[in-house]
Amino acid sequence: VNLFWAIERMRKCAQRHREDIKKLEEEASRIHKEDEECCAKIGIVGEKLLEDEDSVLTHCNAGALATGGDGTALSIIYAAKKKGKKIKVYVDETRPLLQGARLTCFELLKRGIKPTLICDSLAPYLMKIGKIKKVIVGADRITRRGDVANKVGTYTLALSAKEHKIPFYVAAPSYSFDLSMEDGERIKIEERGKDEVKEFFGKKCCPEGVDVLNLAFDVTPASFVTAFVTECGIIYPPFEENIPSTLQ
Amino acid sequence: VNLFWAIERMRKCAQRHREDIKKLEEEASRIHKEDEECCAKIGIVGEKLLEDEDSVLTHCNAGALATGGDGTALSIIYAAKKKGKKIKVYVDETRPLLQGARLTCFELLKRGIKPTLICDSLAPYLMKIGKIKKVIVGADRITRRGDVANKVGTYTLALSAKEHKIPFYVAAPSYSFDLSMEDGERIKIEERGKDEVKEFFGKKCCPEGVDVLNLAFDVTPASFVTAFVTECGIIYPPFEENIPSTLQ
Repeated sequence: VNLFWAIERMRKCAQRHREDIKKLEEEASRIHKEDEECCAKIGIVGEKLLEDEDSVLTHCNAGALATGGDGTALSIIYAAKKKGKKIKVYVDETRPLLQGARLTCFELLKRGIKPTLICDSLAPYLMKIGKIKKVIVGADRITRRGDVANKVGTYTLALSAKEHKIPFYVAAPSYSFDLSMEDGERIKIEERGKDEVKEFFGKKCCPEGVDVLNLAFDVTPASFVTAFVTECGIIYPPFEENIPSTLQ
Repeated sequence: VNLFWAIERMRKCAQRHREDIKKLEEEASRIHKEDEECCAKIGIVGEKLLEDEDSVLTHCNAGALATGGDGTALSIIYAAKKKGKKIKVYVDETRPLLQGARLTCFELLKRGIKPTLICDSLAPYLMKIGKIKKVIVGADRITRRGDVANKVGTYTLALSAKEHKIPFYVAAPSYSFDLSMEDGERIKIEERGKDEVKEFFGKKCCPEGVDVLNLAFDVTPASFVTAFVTECGIIYPPFEENIPSTLQ
């Protein structure tokens, strides 16, 4: 939802200034700078949730490669590290496009954090055997009552975290919340190309004739979320009250 | 555990017949034939659990490529099809080695069933939105009280099936039960090579310097299993009573 929020800001700016390119450039730079500051704030707000020697799982990429700044989920990890906390980071590979393996691992290594990569399907079992203490993910869109649309697999982690009484945090800027949308039932889930699953770097990995269902996102119900970490503070349940009151 | 069971039978045969090769060949053929019949029985016993127009998820390969006969989980699907039931089959790709995408899809296609391949992390969400009605998996080893060691990701499916009140069936021959082992806590989980996750058909899919945790199996607690389908019949809870009484 952030992209549409930014486009809307640019459109309003264009209307206001009769499409003056210089003004549009300034607005774009402002959005970028604000997003950077927002990410930094999310980190500062969220790092308090992590303890020294904590072990955290993240999914997909919620870092510098997906935002204007240091990211959302990863910004929290970076801020905790800056405070001197030692954090063990597990990264889901995030099939089919492997954003976890390719992007998140890359980012973490650049920041001096050696991640442990796992297959998506292992995460719930690692929660069961006590290897994962906290889950932090980003979000594509959050509804007014706290349902979360995010990269496919997020629902699995949230469900499993709840079962194992592990905190499940969603880190996102205020503009990822779509307060006009009541609940997650209405979110349309993008179905992406079948070849993303059938092929791997151009190599076929299943026989001809197989059908594929490749949903890009899933929706995690608010009841599975421990708290939202935003630049405006940490939002705990009841979300129906606390999301609008914190963000409006 | 089946491999060790078969090796033990062969060892006993060798002792009995002073390593007479012909006798050993006969015993091997007998084991093969028995396994074939056992798979067929599992199918006949289990197909009653499936209704016409059912949709079933399976994981890894529990078919002809993993057994002496038609398999365990897949044998049930084949038997249901033979009875004229239309079954929609979802197949988890089963990272890291993609046994679902490569083997199970191949087998199903050969049998005239067009499977729908999905990424492992999508399965719980498909249960949530009502696309998957039943889960059937095989097992590597089942303890006396019904804990199940099976391909990594099985635990995730069982946990999710329980949450969504979807039957979770484990299909296995009696010789996959290790009645000498009380519970799953004692099962040692094999950790496999890191390159299985880091590389894909020889292509690197994460940056250098990343660590990997690649557990090949997980253990699903008996409380997540709806029933076991064996050649001796369907075993429902309480498993502590019903497993030994059915199989001994």
